Order: sequence, then C-alpha cells, then structure tokens
Amino acid sequence: MLSAAGAMLFALAAPLFAQQSATDRLIASELASSQAYETLAHLTDEIGPRLSGSKQAAAAVEWTTERFRAWGIDIRNEPVMVPHWVRGREEAQLVSHMDQKIVLTALGGSVATPENGITAEVVEVNDFDELQALGTKVKGKIVYFNNPMDMELVRARHSFEAYRKAVAFRGAGASRAAEFGAVAALIRSVGSASLRTPHTGSLHYDPKQPKIPAAAMTAEDAMLIDRLIKRGQKVRMHLVLTPRELPDVKSFNVVAEIKGSEHPEEIVVIGGHLDSWDLGTGAIDDGSGVAMVMETMRLIKQLDIHPRRTIRCVLFMNEENGLRGGKQYFEDHKSEKHIAAIETDAGAAAPTGFTTTLNGDALSAMDARMQSSLSKLGAARFETSKETGADTSFLVAAGVTGFSLIPDPLHYFDYHHTPADTLDKVDAHELALDSAAIAALAVAIADGGV
Amino acid sequence: MLSAAGAMLFALAAPLFAQQSATDRLIASELASSQAYETLAHLTDEIGPRLSGSKQAAAAVEWTTERFRAWGIDIRNEPVMVPHWVRGREEAQLVSHMDQKIVLTALGGSVATPENGITAEVVEVNDFDELQALGTKVKGKIVYFNNPMDMELVRARHSFEAYRKAVAFRGAGASRAAEFGAVAALIRSVGSASLRTPHTGSLHYDPKQPKIPAAAMTAEDAMLIDRLIKRGQKVRMHLVLTPRELPDVKSFNVVAEIKGSEHPEEIVVIGGHLDSWDLGTGAIDDGSGVAMVMETMRLIKQLDIHPRRTIRCVLFMNEENGLRGGKQYFEDHKSEKHIAAIETDAGAAAPTGFTTTLNGDALSAMDARMQSSLSKLGAARFETSKETGADTSFLVAAGVTGFSLIPDPLHYFDYHHTPADTLDKVDAHELALDSAAIAALAVAIADGGV
Repeated sequence: MLSAAGAMLFALAAPLFAQQSATDRLIASELASSQAYETLAHLTDEIGPRLSGSKQAAAAVEWTTERFRAWGIDIRNEPVMVPHWVRGREEAQLVSHMDQKIVLTALGGSVATPENGITAEVVEVNDFDELQALGTKVKGKIVYFNNPMDMELVRARHSFEAYRKAVAFRGAGASRAAEFGAVAALIRSVGSASLRTPHTGSLHYDPKQPKIPAAAMTAEDAMLIDRLIKRGQKVRMHLVLTPRELPDVKSFNVVAEIKGSEHPEEIVVIGGHLDSWDLGTGAIDDGSGVAMVMETMRLIKQLDIHPRRTIRCVLFMNEENGLRGGKQYFEDHKSEKHIAAIETDAGAAAPTGFTTTLNGDALSAMDARMQSSLSKLGAARFETSKETGADTSFLVAAGVTGFSLIPDPLHYFDYHHTPADTLDKVDAHELALDSAAIAALAVAIADGGV
Repeated sequence: MLSAAGAMLFALAAPLFAQQSATDRLIASELASSQAYETLAHLTDEIGPRLSGSKQAAAAVEWTTERFRAWGIDIRNEPVMVPHWVRGREEAQLVSHMDQKIVLTALGGSVATPENGITAEVVEVNDFDELQALGTKVKGKIVYFNNPMDMELVRARHSFEAYRKAVAFRGAGASRAAEFGAVAALIRSVGSASLRTPHTGSLHYDPKQPKIPAAAMTAEDAMLIDRLIKRGQKVRMHLVLTPRELPDVKSFNVVAEIKGSEHPEEIVVIGGHLDSWDLGTGAIDDGSGVAMVMETMRLIKQLDIHPRRTIRCVLFMNEENGLRGGKQYFEDHKSEKHIAAIETDAGAAAPTGFTTTLNGDALSAMDARMQSSLSKLGAARFETSKETGADTSFLVAAGVTGFSLIPDPLHYFDYHHTPADTLDKVDAHELALDSAAIAALAVAIADGGV
C-alpha cells in the first residue's frame, strides 16, 4: 500500500521514469529493491548443497520453478539425465608419523578405495614431467601432485589463470598416475586460502587407464607432506574414500522466458547453474549466479519492459560434475537462433565487467554502447576471451557470442568448492550490482543486438 | 669445524663478546641461529596433536626430554595423572531443513549423546539472562548460545578480552542450559576467522547439574541457524557426539634446570605447555611456547652463561583440558623459593612485550632495566595484569611475580584450538624474536631479580 504522499511522488516521478532507458530503469530498480539476496538465501540456507542427483537439487528445481511462476513468467522444466555421485567417508592418516590425521576430500567422480582403505607410500611430484621421469617407480604408491596456486597471479587478480594452471592436476592427475601403476592420487586443494579447508572439484578419468581413487588435501596437509618428504623421510598413508556412483537421475534445466516484442525467435540466453558441490551450500558457486539471472527476469517482468528479442533464463543442472545440463540445452535448442549467451558463474563480489568472445570493432562498439549504464556499477570493462563459461560453451563453440560476468576475483578461490561457500560470503549490495549488470547487458543486447 | 679465517675472527671477537651483557649475547645468538623453529617443526610435523593421555603426548615428553639431555641440561620428568578424553564422531544435520549438514566439534570434556544421537529443536539465546528468562521452556531442547567474538576488540588487538567475553558460554553454557532441562548445548566457535572452521576448547560441568553434551558450531553454521530462527522458522537438529572419557593416564611435566651460580635455591620458572588440542598440531598453542623456552635453555647452556639464580624450564602437561600439570608442579614445588614465573602461551607472532603482575615503581624499574635489550626485539612493552598464564597461575596466586609473553594477538584466535593450528602459521623469524625476548627476560631476572 502506498501512502498518499508516496502515491503522489510516484505519480510525479512516473513520466520522468518513462523517459529513462530500460537499462537505466532496471539498474535503478535493482539497486533500490533487489531480491537477489533473498533468492540466494533460500537456495543456500533453506535448501542447502545441491549436488546433481540429490534431493536438494530436485528441491531447487521445484522452488525456482515456483518462483518464476509466482512472478508470472513463462517457465518450463527441460529433462536431463545427470550423474548421481555421493561422497562417503574420507579419512587419511600418516601411519609413518604417529597416525597423524590428514584432512582431505574426495575429488568429484572419484572411485572408492576398498572399504577398509589402502596403505601405501606417498611419492611427491611437481608436475607431469616429474611423474613421467619416475615412471613405474610410482607403482603401488600414492602420487601426490604438489600444485600450489600461484598466489602472485591471484593477488594481481588473475585468479582464474592461477586456477587453470593448478587445476590441471585435479582433472588429469589420477589417470596419469594410474598409467604408471599408482594406487591413488592426491593433489593440494586448488584454492587461495585455507584454514585446513579442503577444496573439491571434478576429475576426469582417461578411459584407457584403470580408475584409481583421488582426493584433495588441504593446503596445510599438502605442505606437511611436502616438508616431511623434503626432510628425506618416507611417508606412508592409510587412505579411506568410499564415494559411490549411483545410477543416473532424471533432473531438469529450469528455463524461463520473456518473449521478444519484435523478434521472439531471436534469443538472448542468460544463465547460471542450479547445482552446486556438496561441501558448502553453493552461495558463490553458483547460487549467486542463479539469483542474478532470476532477478533480471523478475525485474524485466515487474517493470513491464518489453525487449525486442527474447530473453531466456536458463538455470543449468549439473555444471559441476558432468555439464550435462549445458550439453542437453544445446542439443535441445541448437536449431534456434541464439544472439548471445551471458553466463554468470564466477562469484558474487562487486562486478568489474564482462569477458566476451567479441573482439576488434565489435568489442569497441559494445564497450561504447554499454559505458554509460555499466560504469555506474563499476562493471564497464569488456575484455576478449575465448572462454565465457562452461554451460554456454557449446553455444559459443557453435558461434554464439558469449559473455561472462566478472566479479572481483580476488577472494573467489578462497571459498570455491569448499565447505565455506556459504551465504555469509556474499554481500547483498554487491550481489545487487552484479544483478543490475546482467540485467542491463541482457536488455541492451535484446534490444540492440551484439 | 672452523676455517682458519673463521677461527681468527672468533679469537678476535671473543673478548668483545665477553664484554657484552649476557642478555645481549643471548639475543644476538638467538637471532643468528635459532633452533626454535626446528623444535616446533618436530613437535608439530613429526609428533602431531598432543592431547593429554594420547600416545603423541607421551612421545612429546620423551622427545623433549631427550633433547634436553642431548644439550647437556639437567632434566627430570615429574609424574602427573591427566585426563584422557577422546573425541569420537561428531555429526549434525538440520532435519527441519533438508538434512543440511552442520559442522561442529565437541567441546573438550563433553559427554556423549546416545550412539545414534538426539533430535531436538534448537533454541537460541544471546546470554545467560535470556536463558534464565526462557527457563524451563528450553526443556528437551538444544540451547544455542549466540556468542560471536567482538571483532572490534580483536581489530584493536584486545583479542584476549574479546576471547574472555565470548568463551564464558563455552565454559559454563552446558551446565546452565542443563539446569533448565536442555538436552544439549551449542556455542558459536570462539574465533576471529572461519572457513567453516570449528574451534574446540574445554567446558566445565557444574557438579550440581546433569551433564549434557556440548559442541561448538563453526561461525558459518552458527550464523545459518541464527538466520533461520530470526526468519521465524523452527529449527530441529539431529546431533551425534561420541567422545569418551577414559581412565586417567600417568604423564609428566618435563622439568629442565640450569642451576644458579650464586643462589641456586632461588628459581625463575619459564614455561609453556606440551599438550595441545587434538584438532590441529598445536603449533601456536603451544608448541611455539615450548620451542621458545627450550631454546632459551639451549642457548644459555651453549653460550656458557651462568645466571646467578636457577632458571627452571617447565613443559607443563595438560594445560588444555585440566591444568593438572600446573597444579601438580605447584604442589610439588610450592615450598621452594620462586622469584618469577614467565609463561608463554599466546602464540608465536612477533613479540610486543610482556604482561606482568608487577605494578607501580617495580613495574617502572623493570621497564627501565629491560628497555635497551627488549626494544630491539619490539618487545619492550610491560603492562600490569592479574593474569599472566594458566599453568603458572597457582604460583602467581601464591605471590610469585608473573610474566606472560605477548606476541601480536591480531590473528591468534583465527587458528587457536582449530584444525588450522599448524606449523605453517608460524614465521621462523618471529618465533626467534619471541625466544630471544624470553631468554633476555629470564636471564635478566635470574641475574638481577624482579
């Protein structure tokens, strides 16, 4: 209910409001009345971790669908079969060192050790060359890839570059070690902060090699083992990992749409992923991305904005351990005309801008068009990149112009894939700025193309 | 082996060296060749957590004893019976909220829940007044004391004051809640940083009340429950804690001594505690204190310094969950003439000075005497306090002058009592500065009194 004074103010402001561009209206509304944080709070606090195949992932599909419906936005659930990997016990001790506990977490997709574990010597290598040089000397042993993140890169805010370098061993380490007969693989958690904090994430088994269990130790535990080995000591570990790969589960991409007023057949996708890792509650990865794109849709609808092209919001399922939702969306929709794909899966810190597959004159033009609206959000920097997000990578590979929101990356990998990825890491105002940046770019492209 | 040039240099420098005060020689040697870090590395990396009654605590007694012996220092093990509390499973889920996992750790000394746990509503109170006001309304429920540390105090480096305020609920919360029929008690981890990091610590049961299980949730989990309850929701938790209190174990204070050259019967005690909590490896609490006082003894011996009074180094057992070592030392030695007790149990950051029970003119005199040696370590600040350490509190209560080393406290409670209390949190140079400060003060008092 508006008070009389409020109503009058509203009446006076309305014509002025109408003269504003759609993007400016979106930004002003978003900053004044963002509900992104409430959306995120529900996903994280009330539903919790949303690993593919879990009841929480199913609840997230149901709840987000219901929200769109309540906002009066067209919504559909598009089926996708997803993996159902379930973490089990994860325990390790150094039997060579007073049974000292080692804190670690299974990598997503890892096979299990026998129920009562394995015991073997730990051999440390810095990279694949060193592994190759050792060759079959690692047979019957546990290979530990000593892969700290390059913190200079992180401090220079090239966090994703540092991540890509360190994460190579998470993805391929197990199979590379298995090739030479190793019985398990360990990495140092790929992260930029630790209070004995494990960072999980997916591995990829090479079908040509035997599958061996793999885990990420915390930075502290990884450094401990490095010190012991550098002191010339033999380190023997007892390792128990009991994850299970259950049968695939039917899940859904949640697809909401506001039809274009002039070119409904031309589509601007905005998306984040609804699933999360199981250790935290997926606040920065990627509940916040989901909240931003949902908020964009809510605002466009509520402000009665009618973009010329269709804006389609996709909440992808299974980005983390399979990318099945992204693939399925592409399979189902590749014949449609996608104008752009805007993905947000890099946290919820204050926005700095976007990476985009645009370059040259097209990049300059986009930059020029968006300066006035995005600069007030601190989000006006456009930078060319070949990669603008995992879920939309199939669209981008097929030639669709990609965009990825870049929140300040300084602390992203402090929390990413850890138990500490929780709501308290997100600032409501920064999340609103992010949401406004997504909304502004989406509507600008829907109206003006790329 | 000295080279010829080195030997000549040494011969030339020796008379100059002899003219230096003993404290200056200690400081110079300590900063040039500290072995404190090596001592700490062994305690933490090779032995690990040293909870009273554990095999690691016994190994720490044995290894430190052997070190003193190797250094040619008089050493004895003084028996003390200690509690043997063993952590079990610690699991919690919010059955009201999709079985969301709650990360927590049992408080030291807590009794167990039944093997398959308890399930009850969580009731939040901010303090004992609110608990009192609820009274028997908490019957059958889990009481959660919402006790965040005052971070303004921490940032102002009054970390210990912030700790004392927050920790009141850890100590007394369980029994106060039990008085009104609660079935378990929870606190927010008493700490100044968290990446879903539990901080353990002792509770004290009131013998007049039933013993109920108690645990510390991580800050993230505590804030989650606070948010849910503030949204008006009922929060129900399933809680499993299976710690066990085993029979007391015979352990030891490790007591090393360098006899005074003039007044061997007058004793300056320097001490830290050899036991630690079980979650981390007790690097800052209190492996570093042990390393500092051991290093002081090693250097005095090696530099052939002969203080006028006896310097006695006590590595106390069971500071964390019983204080039995401190009590036993006092019982065994209260008839002796103690001149001062210097305790170091506040971490290993760069030294800032000492708290002391001295005040008035005696404080000023001590301050004046120590300025020239301690100021080069940044450790020249003396401040009056009634409390200068737990293990030596019995001596101090009996009138002995107390001193406590104060390393920069800013980050102490980030790691204190957590799994992240590990060697990597200690800087070798800062630890050497601390060791030098202890050595300088100990020898100055042994020579010149208080």
